[in-house]
Amino acid sequence: MGDFEGFVIRHFTYFCNMIPNDTIIALATPSGAGAIAVIRISGKDAIAYVSHFFKSIHGKKLDKQKSHTILLGHIVEGKQTFDEVLISIFKGPNSYTGEDVVEISCHGSPYIQQQIIQLFLRNGCRMADAGEFTLRAFLNGKMDLSQAEAVADLIASDNAASHQIAIQQMRGGFSNEIKNLREELLNFASLIELELDFAEEDVEFANRDDFKALVDKIRKVLKRLIDSFAVGNVIKNGIPVAIVGEPNVGKSTLLNALLNEERALVSEIAGTTRDTIEDEISIGGIGFRFIDTAGIRETEDVVEGMGIKRTFEKIEKSEVTLYLFDSGEVMSSELRVKSLLLEVDRLKNKYPQKPLIIVANKIDRLSEQEISNLESQFRLPPEQVSDTFAGESGLVLLSAKTGQGIEELQSQLLQFVNTGALRNNETIVTNTRHYNALLKALEEIDKVQLGIDESLPSDLMAIDVREALYHLGEITGQVTNDELLGNIFANFCIGK
Amino acid sequence: MGDFEGFVIRHFTYFCNMIPNDTIIALATPSGAGAIAVIRISGKDAIAYVSHFFKSIHGKKLDKQKSHTILLGHIVEGKQTFDEVLISIFKGPNSYTGEDVVEISCHGSPYIQQQIIQLFLRNGCRMADAGEFTLRAFLNGKMDLSQAEAVADLIASDNAASHQIAIQQMRGGFSNEIKNLREELLNFASLIELELDFAEEDVEFANRDDFKALVDKIRKVLKRLIDSFAVGNVIKNGIPVAIVGEPNVGKSTLLNALLNEERALVSEIAGTTRDTIEDEISIGGIGFRFIDTAGIRETEDVVEGMGIKRTFEKIEKSEVTLYLFDSGEVMSSELRVKSLLLEVDRLKNKYPQKPLIIVANKIDRLSEQEISNLESQFRLPPEQVSDTFAGESGLVLLSAKTGQGIEELQSQLLQFVNTGALRNNETIVTNTRHYNALLKALEEIDKVQLGIDESLPSDLMAIDVREALYHLGEITGQVTNDELLGNIFANFCIGK
Repeated sequence: MGDFEGFVIRHFTYFCNMIPNDTIIALATPSGAGAIAVIRISGKDAIAYVSHFFKSIHGKKLDKQKSHTILLGHIVEGKQTFDEVLISIFKGPNSYTGEDVVEISCHGSPYIQQQIIQLFLRNGCRMADAGEFTLRAFLNGKMDLSQAEAVADLIASDNAASHQIAIQQMRGGFSNEIKNLREELLNFASLIELELDFAEEDVEFANRDDFKALVDKIRKVLKRLIDSFAVGNVIKNGIPVAIVGEPNVGKSTLLNALLNEERALVSEIAGTTRDTIEDEISIGGIGFRFIDTAGIRETEDVVEGMGIKRTFEKIEKSEVTLYLFDSGEVMSSELRVKSLLLEVDRLKNKYPQKPLIIVANKIDRLSEQEISNLESQFRLPPEQVSDTFAGESGLVLLSAKTGQGIEELQSQLLQFVNTGALRNNETIVTNTRHYNALLKALEEIDKVQLGIDESLPSDLMAIDVREALYHLGEITGQVTNDELLGNIFANFCIGK
Repeated sequence: MGDFEGFVIRHFTYFCNMIPNDTIIALATPSGAGAIAVIRISGKDAIAYVSHFFKSIHGKKLDKQKSHTILLGHIVEGKQTFDEVLISIFKGPNSYTGEDVVEISCHGSPYIQQQIIQLFLRNGCRMADAGEFTLRAFLNGKMDLSQAEAVADLIASDNAASHQIAIQQMRGGFSNEIKNLREELLNFASLIELELDFAEEDVEFANRDDFKALVDKIRKVLKRLIDSFAVGNVIKNGIPVAIVGEPNVGKSTLLNALLNEERALVSEIAGTTRDTIEDEISIGGIGFRFIDTAGIRETEDVVEGMGIKRTFEKIEKSEVTLYLFDSGEVMSSELRVKSLLLEVDRLKNKYPQKPLIIVANKIDRLSEQEISNLESQFRLPPEQVSDTFAGESGLVLLSAKTGQGIEELQSQLLQFVNTGALRNNETIVTNTRHYNALLKALEEIDKVQLGIDESLPSDLMAIDVREALYHLGEITGQVTNDELLGNIFANFCIGK
């Protein structure tokens, strides 16, 4: 076996030593008042600690319970009763963390949550760090690193696409693809390492043709995964869209119309707030972030004059620009039409690569003749504005008030997302850390390929292969270090 | 059996008919993002509905599971996976509601919570009303009405005393006391009703001496419970305390000093916010509400001049007044001392019944001699200020900055709460509805007593007994109606 596995095993042993043997506690449900709250305790003494302060209603002993069962009873200390609770028992390794886990489902009063957590902090438990339950799950081999990261992504997911990718990643789709590649590469690596031991005899255990075929295959997969990041990144973070236009052209009405469908669904469920995604709107399951929409409503936001700098900043931060105007107002004068066409042209010239959607709002106030005029005005003369509506840009006629044209706008926005990969359930990389590791792995694989083509000696080639294996291993956590783990889990919430 | 039981049975039958046979769903944990969230489903089809969209990891069937067990798996609809979840099964009647209950523990993303709830809303479930799970528990005989009310009190409890009372009430202490009394009274009522059937024969089945003894006993219990409400009410709602004094005498520092101990405990538990009880401070487990403290910091708040009206309003809303002054500043001049003594006297004359605590702040800046002067000044001449420090009022020397004297102030504040009943685990009534029902029951019992004393005929006495039984039954819900239930459960949160 080569040095790589040795390295991995040394690391693995290191992690095994790193597995803490204390028992941690945290609130697992959101803070605040609700019907119930769940407190999670994990560690080798979890069951013993809770048993000590639990009295079952039916006199059953907690420490005699089977895994995956629930007992009703009270948390008591001396004469004081803290709460009537349900206790769920999960015995390691068949638990989230792989350790013994006890979940206390208590009444959802912040006071009671505190009292119970403090009781166990006073009696052996330690407050869990952010993500520490999931870190333990990783250290105990319950999931690999990319699966652990998917847990955080899943909790943060707020639309269908990011949710689907996180679920897929959590179930190991991505990890398995990487692990299989790494496994194949590792086999060759071992053979090449073996050649080093027989360096003077000039043998080739690793068949160079097979090796070349494998490297080709790996290159293709890496390329595909790296390319998927462009989509993955916008899916995870939402697609930034700049809405520009003069005041009172109906920006907020348009946003409300886009939000409408979703709002109707959401309002059924009392208690779910939408504050955090106020300006993020999910269209066809993809999140679109409308940039600086609050500001737009209040400021003089025209391309000409004072607002021009702000407008350009907004466009630079976005992937798509919506140019919104009041069709009735504009169509009322030849001059207005011309100045608008000029403005649009100017934007297009300044940002030739940035898709622009021209949105004519308030068309419910126009007659059919006026609409037809509008269309011809903004499509003619073609020699003047040919660039404007070419390629990715287009004109959408709509009424934010009546909803007419909203679907057309939604479908135009969705054009900017390559949803093919999503539909086909292909692996999509959303994590910048994975993306960077894939880039580095590809760089090394390219070197290996060159090495094969130029018939480099085994010892030189082995170095590049080793590096490629290292970067692939970083993704799944087969190769890792404290600092990396610290960075990853610090972004988790406490209780996960 | 008398008319009363008939009445109760008719009502009970009515409620049995009222028990809905649909299946309800709601988020049971607080809204927002957390590590996990729990969705609760209750009703005869709960298990069937969830089975339909659940795939166990180990291929186990949900509908074959025993009660109080947990299965790991995925919520799926067709090809779409919603989440990896834990499913807890509770089979009726051994569940919170008495019906079949399924709890879905999913990842704590608001998006996922919504998706899962919407899935079941589309497929047979109905969104639960506020308190509907607990209403069903009541209708199914899992708890009586006062226990159900205690569930809401428990969730709202934010200090040791209100928590203890709610726990006790939830465990049935209060209900049992009322039920036992009512049972005994019911026995006599039946005998008296029986006398009515033999009215012409002038027999007395109900021994009048025993009956008198029972009525005496009931009166005593009712009196004790009614009296306990004075304490119960302040424990539940907090004791309102007015802090008055000129600006910059250290009001906010004092509040912070009082909060300090508790804050230190709370800060250990990340994610718990204290916003809602910003001006409520728990001292010795009792909540004290400091009135209008935010305003005090900014406004000119002196007894003289513009602030006087505000100050009086504050004192009128409070149970206790703290009069705070800067001891160094006041002791610097004879005139200031005199004017302060006059002010204090004026307050005392205006509110002779309202306990007043004079608090000399910033004593860390005084020499021992000055402190001794301060004490003698504010205790002398006794003929002038005799009322001021008499009885329940007192002088407390403290330094909010160093913490000196804080304990003395806390113990003075606690004097205003009769914690005896609390310490002795006696029943304390905290609910206004119960208090009113107890008052009405006592009124009727007084009439019954008078009837016995004046040897009223059985048929007249029966009316008063019936009324007393009715009001006692209202407390536990043995007698109730839709409107009452509607009012009670409307105040619950959704998911409980």
